[in-house]
Amino acid sequence: MEQSIRKIRDFETGDRLDCYFIIKRVDLKTTNSNDKKYLDFIFGDVTGEISGKLWDVPYDQEDFFKAGMLIKARGTVTSYQNSLQFKVDRIRTVDAKDNVDPRDFVVAAPLDPDFMYSEIEGFAKGMANTHIRSLVLRIMEENKEKLMYYPAAKRNHHSIRSGLLYHVLTMLRLGMKISQIYEEINTDLLYAGIILHDMEKLNEMDSTELGIVSEYTVEGTLLGHITQGVKNIERVAMELGTPKEISMILEHMVLSHHYEPDFGSPVKPMILEAEILHHIDMIDARVFDITNATKDIEGGTFTDNIWSLDRRRMYKPLFEGSVKK
Amino acid sequence: MEQSIRKIRDFETGDRLDCYFIIKRVDLKTTNSNDKKYLDFIFGDVTGEISGKLWDVPYDQEDFFKAGMLIKARGTVTSYQNSLQFKVDRIRTVDAKDNVDPRDFVVAAPLDPDFMYSEIEGFAKGMANTHIRSLVLRIMEENKEKLMYYPAAKRNHHSIRSGLLYHVLTMLRLGMKISQIYEEINTDLLYAGIILHDMEKLNEMDSTELGIVSEYTVEGTLLGHITQGVKNIERVAMELGTPKEISMILEHMVLSHHYEPDFGSPVKPMILEAEILHHIDMIDARVFDITNATKDIEGGTFTDNIWSLDRRRMYKPLFEGSVKK
Amino acid sequence: MEQSIRKIRDFETGDRLDCYFIIKRVDLKTTNSNDKKYLDFIFGDVTGEISGKLWDVPYDQEDFFKAGMLIKARGTVTSYQNSLQFKVDRIRTVDAKDNVDPRDFVVAAPLDPDFMYSEIEGFAKGMANTHIRSLVLRIMEENKEKLMYYPAAKRNHHSIRSGLLYHVLTMLRLGMKISQIYEEINTDLLYAGIILHDMEKLNEMDSTELGIVSEYTVEGTLLGHITQGVKNIERVAMELGTPKEISMILEHMVLSHHYEPDFGSPVKPMILEAEILHHIDMIDARVFDITNATKDIEGGTFTDNIWSLDRRRMYKPLFEGSVKK
Amino acid sequence: MEQSIRKIRDFETGDRLDCYFIIKRVDLKTTNSNDKKYLDFIFGDVTGEISGKLWDVPYDQEDFFKAGMLIKARGTVTSYQNSLQFKVDRIRTVDAKDNVDPRDFVVAAPLDPDFMYSEIEGFAKGMANTHIRSLVLRIMEENKEKLMYYPAAKRNHHSIRSGLLYHVLTMLRLGMKISQIYEEINTDLLYAGIILHDMEKLNEMDSTELGIVSEYTVEGTLLGHITQGVKNIERVAMELGTPKEISMILEHMVLSHHYEPDFGSPVKPMILEAEILHHIDMIDARVFDITNATKDIEGGTFTDNIWSLDRRRMYKPLFEGSVKK
Amino acid sequence: MEQSIRKIRDFETGDRLDCYFIIKRVDLKTTNSNDKKYLDFIFGDVTGEISGKLWDVPYDQEDFFKAGMLIKARGTVTSYQNSLQFKVDRIRTVDAKDNVDPRDFVVAAPLDPDFMYSEIEGFAKGMANTHIRSLVLRIMEENKEKLMYYPAAKRNHHSIRSGLLYHVLTMLRLGMKISQIYEEINTDLLYAGIILHDMEKLNEMDSTELGIVSEYTVEGTLLGHITQGVKNIERVAMELGTPKEISMILEHMVLSHHYEPDFGSPVKPMILEAEILHHIDMIDARVFDITNATKDIEGGTFTDNIWSLDRRRMYKPLFEGSVKK
Amino acid sequence: MEQSIRKIRDFETGDRLDCYFIIKRVDLKTTNSNDKKYLDFIFGDVTGEISGKLWDVPYDQEDFFKAGMLIKARGTVTSYQNSLQFKVDRIRTVDAKDNVDPRDFVVAAPLDPDFMYSEIEGFAKGMANTHIRSLVLRIMEENKEKLMYYPAAKRNHHSIRSGLLYHVLTMLRLGMKISQIYEEINTDLLYAGIILHDMEKLNEMDSTELGIVSEYTVEGTLLGHITQGVKNIERVAMELGTPKEISMILEHMVLSHHYEPDFGSPVKPMILEAEILHHIDMIDARVFDITNATKDIEGGTFTDNIWSLDRRRMYKPLFEGSVKK
Repeated sequence: MEQSIRKIRDFETGDRLDCYFIIKRVDLKTTNSNDKKYLDFIFGDVTGEISGKLWDVPYDQEDFFKAGMLIKARGTVTSYQNSLQFKVDRIRTVDAKDNVDPRDFVVAAPLDPDFMYSEIEGFAKGMANTHIRSLVLRIMEENKEKLMYYPAAKRNHHSIRSGLLYHVLTMLRLGMKISQIYEEINTDLLYAGIILHDMEKLNEMDSTELGIVSEYTVEGTLLGHITQGVKNIERVAMELGTPKEISMILEHMVLSHHYEPDFGSPVKPMILEAEILHHIDMIDARVFDITNATKDIEGGTFTDNIWSLDRRRMYKPLFEGSVKK
Repeated sequence: MEQSIRKIRDFETGDRLDCYFIIKRVDLKTTNSNDKKYLDFIFGDVTGEISGKLWDVPYDQEDFFKAGMLIKARGTVTSYQNSLQFKVDRIRTVDAKDNVDPRDFVVAAPLDPDFMYSEIEGFAKGMANTHIRSLVLRIMEENKEKLMYYPAAKRNHHSIRSGLLYHVLTMLRLGMKISQIYEEINTDLLYAGIILHDMEKLNEMDSTELGIVSEYTVEGTLLGHITQGVKNIERVAMELGTPKEISMILEHMVLSHHYEPDFGSPVKPMILEAEILHHIDMIDARVFDITNATKDIEGGTFTDNIWSLDRRRMYKPLFEGSVKK
Repeated sequence: MEQSIRKIRDFETGDRLDCYFIIKRVDLKTTNSNDKKYLDFIFGDVTGEISGKLWDVPYDQEDFFKAGMLIKARGTVTSYQNSLQFKVDRIRTVDAKDNVDPRDFVVAAPLDPDFMYSEIEGFAKGMANTHIRSLVLRIMEENKEKLMYYPAAKRNHHSIRSGLLYHVLTMLRLGMKISQIYEEINTDLLYAGIILHDMEKLNEMDSTELGIVSEYTVEGTLLGHITQGVKNIERVAMELGTPKEISMILEHMVLSHHYEPDFGSPVKPMILEAEILHHIDMIDARVFDITNATKDIEGGTFTDNIWSLDRRRMYKPLFEGSVKK
Repeated sequence: MEQSIRKIRDFETGDRLDCYFIIKRVDLKTTNSNDKKYLDFIFGDVTGEISGKLWDVPYDQEDFFKAGMLIKARGTVTSYQNSLQFKVDRIRTVDAKDNVDPRDFVVAAPLDPDFMYSEIEGFAKGMANTHIRSLVLRIMEENKEKLMYYPAAKRNHHSIRSGLLYHVLTMLRLGMKISQIYEEINTDLLYAGIILHDMEKLNEMDSTELGIVSEYTVEGTLLGHITQGVKNIERVAMELGTPKEISMILEHMVLSHHYEPDFGSPVKPMILEAEILHHIDMIDARVFDITNATKDIEGGTFTDNIWSLDRRRMYKPLFEGSVKK
Repeated sequence: MEQSIRKIRDFETGDRLDCYFIIKRVDLKTTNSNDKKYLDFIFGDVTGEISGKLWDVPYDQEDFFKAGMLIKARGTVTSYQNSLQFKVDRIRTVDAKDNVDPRDFVVAAPLDPDFMYSEIEGFAKGMANTHIRSLVLRIMEENKEKLMYYPAAKRNHHSIRSGLLYHVLTMLRLGMKISQIYEEINTDLLYAGIILHDMEKLNEMDSTELGIVSEYTVEGTLLGHITQGVKNIERVAMELGTPKEISMILEHMVLSHHYEPDFGSPVKPMILEAEILHHIDMIDARVFDITNATKDIEGGTFTDNIWSLDRRRMYKPLFEGSVKK
Repeated sequence: MEQSIRKIRDFETGDRLDCYFIIKRVDLKTTNSNDKKYLDFIFGDVTGEISGKLWDVPYDQEDFFKAGMLIKARGTVTSYQNSLQFKVDRIRTVDAKDNVDPRDFVVAAPLDPDFMYSEIEGFAKGMANTHIRSLVLRIMEENKEKLMYYPAAKRNHHSIRSGLLYHVLTMLRLGMKISQIYEEINTDLLYAGIILHDMEKLNEMDSTELGIVSEYTVEGTLLGHITQGVKNIERVAMELGTPKEISMILEHMVLSHHYEPDFGSPVKPMILEAEILHHIDMIDARVFDITNATKDIEGGTFTDNIWSLDRRRMYKPLFEGSVKK
């Protein structure tokens, strides 16, 4: 029996393995023809996911396993309808002696959360306008705990652990670059808009500490993070005595950052920095999704149609050019 | 010289009259061919509007007259390109001795503001849920002064003095009727939604005490009365300690009451009462605009295309049926 | 063996039961792996539906059972992929001795058809305009038989036995209430529009006497009930000598009642009563669908996305307010 | 004084002329600076239109002239803001001695109405299916009088005297050609659809016998010629005892011939001949409008944006190719 | 064992047959419950397609069969979920002795490719304008080989062997007919536009010599046949020294022939012949798809919703009229 | 008489001045009431535009003045309907002795064309891929002359002298910054896409050497600069023997850079660099238009609705923040 150093991405039909997995989903099912019960798993590690089947499920284990659990499983890799499956022989939850860290089983942002939080805070602390600075810092502090691990979305762009923090940081770095070209940009406003634009995703979605979102909250569904974001700025502005024009403009930036009514913005950007915020948000989301979509395909080929990219197929060129990575 | 009992609706070419008017607009202009200056007025009374010209404007009167002033004018009714004009011979502002009331010169809701406020308050006081009741009453009190005279819109439906109050009251009466048919409606929610849905129009537009709106406010333009309304409910709910589910649902009702993203609602109604609120709002606006559009045309004919009614032409039937008024 | 007082809504895994069902659908199928034939049923009673399987189907019963039949079945309730199934041991059609009424097995309007017809007739008889009254009564009489049991739709709102009658009656009651608020409404027109607006659904769809619609008719597909409705009014108006303006306006009301071209109305409402008709139709359909969608979910939760409600999820509030039922 | 052999297309500034015109429009106006009344005409002949002014209008002539009158005028051609005007010195209506025919003053179809009617009748008489033949011939006979002079539209394609007849005839000829390519086309249906598709334009619009449409009728506005056409076929089918499937399909062809809901067709074509009818209608309208738009521009240039052609600009090539006319 | 004269369209449950098929698709699959491998085929002949199963697949045949192969199979026709299946007992590829021609197993245009090419060439050779003639002939020659067998589409209209040639020829014949009605059409332009409009489908898609398209090319996906067509005309025009106005107009015709931006045309037709080209293309595609959709249904019934026909259901009339075939 | 050092932006009513202007437009008109001819000018200098009138126009000067001429005029500044006018007393064209440079009379890019061309060339020369580098440099050289002065548009963003060069250069600088954030970007492709994306605007529009565009070219109207750009890359790639994948991808970038079909792109971006190109283009256009729209309004106020900015009104904040200029 091979040790579990093998990762899902490298599995091949016929492998017999001992592996650690995180349970992404589990359902108790019954076979079609006879009524045999089995457990239908989605197992994951940091390299991907695989379907798993436990065919003879003991009665006391029918409801035992839950999404999010870390388990050790012994079994065989089989092939079913062009996909690999993991046929489980033995399965148990891990304990201290296993010495495994759940965070090694999910995809996370490439930078450390503390580092990212700190750099973002640096942007905020550098703001010249004291009212904007105070308001932004207050909102960051109030949300620091969740910010450390929340993804930026349930699916698609930055739906990884600490993805929201990473999205905001990259946008800030991009905003700084763009402001070097267009000096008429008020960076206090732009940076504040970037830091605040998606902040209420923390209250729109429910996320585990591993950054896995199972559900939208009730308030998130009834109002949405844009409206929640406006309310939150208003509340903090009242507490801090922020001048009305400033809170109003920050609210406007959050409100307009999706640009189109059909995507949730009832007003379009009416100041330069709100316009820029929208484009920076688009660029960062699109680069993430396109890079992600094309990273595993061959040069000279297309991806399938990708829902989050307007149902486009993306192409990976064959030839070499000037790319740093 | 005939006394000013004649109203604009009854003017005829050739009339020489002394009249009281309200100035709706005034511009200093110069004739095309030579450079003679003249004042170009829109005069109004409760029956309509007429263009007025003062041809030899004394230097000290070039900037004297303002929109909203009540004046007395002597002059002649002439006809120009199929429209009547009032050629001014003499003009002066009114004073105490004239004993005229500006409110007699603008169209107002058919009911007394105090009476309407009071009936609306009755609906609020009858709510079973104490949290909703308190929140609604608080917001009514805070806005009582402006509510007395604000119109419901700059143009179109209920753009008359105290039009907002009248719109809300009629909707409440209609809501009560509909709730007699569909007993599953929670009337606390429905009535609260009706009272609150357009409340922030008071801060979206600037209105004179005669109910004439010249401009949208800065905040009204950057955010709009729907988002302003959500913020306001949030603020009052925090002050009163309203349970979160209640404030959230009331905010949802305000947020969704235009139904379509393109008309300003980023979410669609997700509770029964929000759905009903939308339809009541539509019905009351449409009845007002259709009645208004057709009241002066002949039976058997059409109005012109009316912008606020989806550019439709409306028809007035000839035959008699069961109509109370 | 438990007697069949148990209804589908109350079934639990493991129950062994004798039950009366109506057959909603039946297909002869073959298992995937071997070629064993079985009958795949949808059984229904007034509380819901359940999948049924008859595994060893005698040759002479392969084509025997039909949708709409009332049967008695003995079997066991099992669970398959999170849904209950009824595994049939014995099955036979009912006969007189069973003493069961098919109408007890389908959902029907909450009021008696005769009662509803009669109340609607009362609205018609109260019309002041004799031409409208005669025309409406004539069309009601011609369609009385089908009116008694037709649903208002194949799917969604009022797709229940006598659903069309119930839809019309509720709309009339609502129309009466609204006319108490807006006295400019011509109730003859409004009531006539309500009674006639969906009448040709009787010829657009084929329905069994239990109100189950399997198909649209050829004419219903080629023309649609709106155009059919216009033709029908024209025919009756010619037979009765109805004045042209009246038939034309009634036809216009039917033609415009879906409001949007994309929903089948080539013209938009051009008279007040046509506008009101549209909104009453919307309100009654939406209240029905929302009430239906939320009646079985927990407070504080959402339904799934519902196609007939613009793909919205609906929410059921937790707190108590003023609701009569 | 030059005799009136000159046509409007050939007028030049400075010409002094005696001319016969038809009055297309006339308004009594007043000059801006002083209150001098004048008559503002649009005069027309078969080559075009020109603005006309009668500056010193005698009191008894203020209301004397009407659109549609044939007049003789003496005056001078002047130039005003890049357009020519006709300054009237004398004007009078024509009488028998003038010996002029109003039909020489409007654009008409290039074929004689009797000839066109007759050829269309030939298509109808050649139909194999007796029911379709009878129905089409009956409807043609009932409408023969108006058919002789009605245009096919108020503006745009075939808005000329006898334009409807010409549009139908050209479509029939085109339909015959297309049916030679696609032998699966049922020409009885196709020809019937062509003859009937716009027939109720005769009742949708009011036209003078010169083919000038001033207004839509009330029924035309409330229902539209498509719905009117369906009703009319239904009526005649009932009178003739036409089999239901035939009347239903002919109604479907009329109903679907605009293809898009937004252009008035609540259903799309569901039989081959209805599909073909739509395209033939489009081709004939587009060829007419494009030929008309480009006939007076230089090779190598574009027209302005043309509303009836989807706001397109049309180009006229410079080079020669194979064109018969 | 019955000989293989039976075609797929005529198969019935229980038949035991020896048959020649072309393999349209083949996948190696594993059964759900146990891990038995089987081959899942789509077999085809000129009359249709049938699913085939080879249950005990020898190891050396797992990867042996490929789409496009011609095979001989012995087996039994069974019925599974309302569809027929072919259970394979023996299977082998054909060899010379079988004496079968792959072209007998796919649907092809009803005319011989050489004949069609020749007739199209005749249209080109008859052009009066030598520049257009040379350019069209050159492009035809360069593409002659692929033209012989390419379909006009991957799915839907003319997706048959030599379908593109057939589509172009039918359009030319139709264009000639239409030009007999509208003599202002420049037939050199129209015929050139028809011949060139879809020519680059030859480089947009990859097709086997049987006219089966499996994939779009990379360039076809990144640019599309319309843009490819413009480039190609430009290249040939440069080689031949075609006058700029001519190449520009031909490019415009190709560019605009889909009419709507959403269907790939960035500009709308701006010359008469481009407008006509669009309609001829539509008619030929629609007649093909409608005829195909309705050829196997009963009179008096509808097809299912057909994606390529705007999701319409098509109806087949019952009655007889004037149809040649 | 004051010397012409005064610029249009500083004119006041009553000024009597000698001025140099460029003629932006000139029309010969006739007064309404009497037939006096006059010349109606738009005069411009680098600070703005003013209407000018020459009332007694000598016969030989009626057609003498043309747009683009530089003239010297003596006259008086008057006020007409809230706008200033320049009443011309004397006017003549400038000659060598006047010593004025036309380029001082139009708005131009803030950088020298040679400098800009050179910096852009630097980007091109730095490309690692020799094929891309050669192709880009070749196209730049071929178009160098027009590039020096062409604007980027007829109206709106960068519609100033050398505006296209400035637009490209700013985009390149921005592209470099963005590539520092996202290292997966292939800068060869991105820079090539930026340099080429609008290059064929040089052949889509006709511009004077002062950067004033009066008209689109025939080819520009029939094809548009996007399709022209694809053709041009194809031609140069053939001449240089550029590998097919490279020319195809560059063509794809030009083809997709407007993103939406309705804005002229028949395909959406399918590679990362095409996506980035689109956003950079948007940002640079929007920053230009927003900055331009708000530069002359007061803080705390809105612009009018601006067509090129999606009909938005833009707001200028009052408060101070971190803005460099």
